[in-house]
Amino acid sequence: MSIRIGIMGYGNLGRGVECAIRQNPDMELAAVFTRRDPAEVEILTKTAKVVRAQEAPDWKDRLDVMILCGGSATDLPVQTPEYARYFNVVDSFDTHAKIPEHFAKVDAAAKAGGKVAVISVGWDPGMFSLNRMYANAILPEGKDYTFWGRGVSQGHSDVIRRIEGVKDAKQYTIPVESALAAVRAGENPDLTTRQKHTRECFVVLKEGADAAKVEQEIKTMPNYFADYDTTVHFISEEELKRDHSGIPHGGFVLRSGRTGWEKEHSHLIEYSLKLDSNPEFTSSVIAAYARAAYRLAQEGQTGCKTVFDIAPAYLSAKSGEELRASML
Amino acid sequence: MSIRIGIMGYGNLGRGVECAIRQNPDMELAAVFTRRDPAEVEILTKTAKVVRAQEAPDWKDRLDVMILCGGSATDLPVQTPEYARYFNVVDSFDTHAKIPEHFAKVDAAAKAGGKVAVISVGWDPGMFSLNRMYANAILPEGKDYTFWGRGVSQGHSDVIRRIEGVKDAKQYTIPVESALAAVRAGENPDLTTRQKHTRECFVVLKEGADAAKVEQEIKTMPNYFADYDTTVHFISEEELKRDHSGIPHGGFVLRSGRTGWEKEHSHLIEYSLKLDSNPEFTSSVIAAYARAAYRLAQEGQTGCKTVFDIAPAYLSAKSGEELRASML
Repeated sequence: MSIRIGIMGYGNLGRGVECAIRQNPDMELAAVFTRRDPAEVEILTKTAKVVRAQEAPDWKDRLDVMILCGGSATDLPVQTPEYARYFNVVDSFDTHAKIPEHFAKVDAAAKAGGKVAVISVGWDPGMFSLNRMYANAILPEGKDYTFWGRGVSQGHSDVIRRIEGVKDAKQYTIPVESALAAVRAGENPDLTTRQKHTRECFVVLKEGADAAKVEQEIKTMPNYFADYDTTVHFISEEELKRDHSGIPHGGFVLRSGRTGWEKEHSHLIEYSLKLDSNPEFTSSVIAAYARAAYRLAQEGQTGCKTVFDIAPAYLSAKSGEELRASML
Repeated sequence: MSIRIGIMGYGNLGRGVECAIRQNPDMELAAVFTRRDPAEVEILTKTAKVVRAQEAPDWKDRLDVMILCGGSATDLPVQTPEYARYFNVVDSFDTHAKIPEHFAKVDAAAKAGGKVAVISVGWDPGMFSLNRMYANAILPEGKDYTFWGRGVSQGHSDVIRRIEGVKDAKQYTIPVESALAAVRAGENPDLTTRQKHTRECFVVLKEGADAAKVEQEIKTMPNYFADYDTTVHFISEEELKRDHSGIPHGGFVLRSGRTGWEKEHSHLIEYSLKLDSNPEFTSSVIAAYARAAYRLAQEGQTGCKTVFDIAPAYLSAKSGEELRASML
């Protein structure tokens, strides 16, 4: 019998989850839940239903896992605790600073509902967190580095779009090659924000907008750009569509550490991702953790979990025997 | 209270574990067990005892975890099942093909003794296995690549040393850069053994030995060298000592995969290690899993586990709260 999955929210992430489910033969998409009019939402999976979000609780016994594909700013802080009362859930809550608070709320709700909730699944938080944690446990004396990119930052693209005179924009976060090289060479550099990443912006102006003023406004924007070396390119709407319509991303997690009685030996652990589609990769991680949530629930576990709390084998469709024989 | 550790076998790996324990403040080395005369074994930890191997069972209640530092060929197949009756144990059994058999024997022994046994811990098997498994669970449609090196292969060095006329030797396994580059470029190449790695040998001849004959014998040796492009350098004993006394190693685990409804997007996951000291890094992984074995035993679990079966958080000295706040 397949694991019956529901998707709450059908944006880039929801569609990514739908595609990921298709690649996992032990899962089936039962329904997509939407705040829009279901008649106007067309999904790819012909066998699945499109249902109004408010009807979700009626599906309590027809789903094994509900995957929550809303945003971290306003959707998930409400949705994950709400739906964890009815379903085993997985979310991709990615506001790092608010994870402890989110965990506590979701844990209480999932325990009350007798369900398993897995939060902050994806690649950062997610696979990058796992790699930071494993590397820290292995090399207690060392230094961590995380670089993001080259990839599109949705948040930074959005703030540019809100500037007066800007019609559309895409922003790429780019790791500084020389900084990466220094870390790889075991130099353990202390790196400022500016030394780690640069930002490259592709901007389409509205007619009559003042390019110099827009560029200045971008480059001096606090938090988002002021602390970085930022490049701004003005391009046409056609160029933006032609050259910058993808959502690539990726990055690097490194830990350099020392071992030996007198710390005489150096080691470097590096994990990296190069992703054509940020939401589809995130969705693929989520699908694997949906399998884990289902299995943990089958074992009678309840409450909130993160990637740190789940043994790797739960993610795989293969049995323990198969994993030991083929991948160990 | 610290986790009380015993080390069985005091070679490179045992010494590495001793150093790793020093870096983990929640652990203490209680005793080193040896088949040699304890009076002749000098260890670095002044507070620990050196004890005859056959007296180990007497330490049943004085150790939380026994780390088995013997070899996979003849030591561990006997030792791990034997000591799993008395102790929670961790080993680094690395004969991949025999892991299922080893697992079964150790599992029966650990269950009979009410203990936890963690086998095949290190980096391959170990961290590389974990990365293969995670990447396969995330990207079900894709291709795996493992490259080893640049590093010293003990087994290959040993077979060269057994050739007539050879006084000493070191062999390096080296990944082929162009093959790695093709994988990173998403070309999904089918690679033969020869296309993945080259082998470089540094050989000290005995007086009067025939260099050409030795070189020919190395290069044509089945299994070890015949399937590889092998380079042989003849050097002096001094040069070998000066330039090749380290035990570096490392390697790369990659998975390239596709996502999307029509598999339209590519992704690359890469994990790599660059290690100054192969045994010290392996030991550092083992120390983290010794902590996990202790905690699992505290929870009342028993039987044999691998890295696939253990939730990452068990490896870390940090609490769940600390991990979520600092590393997620």
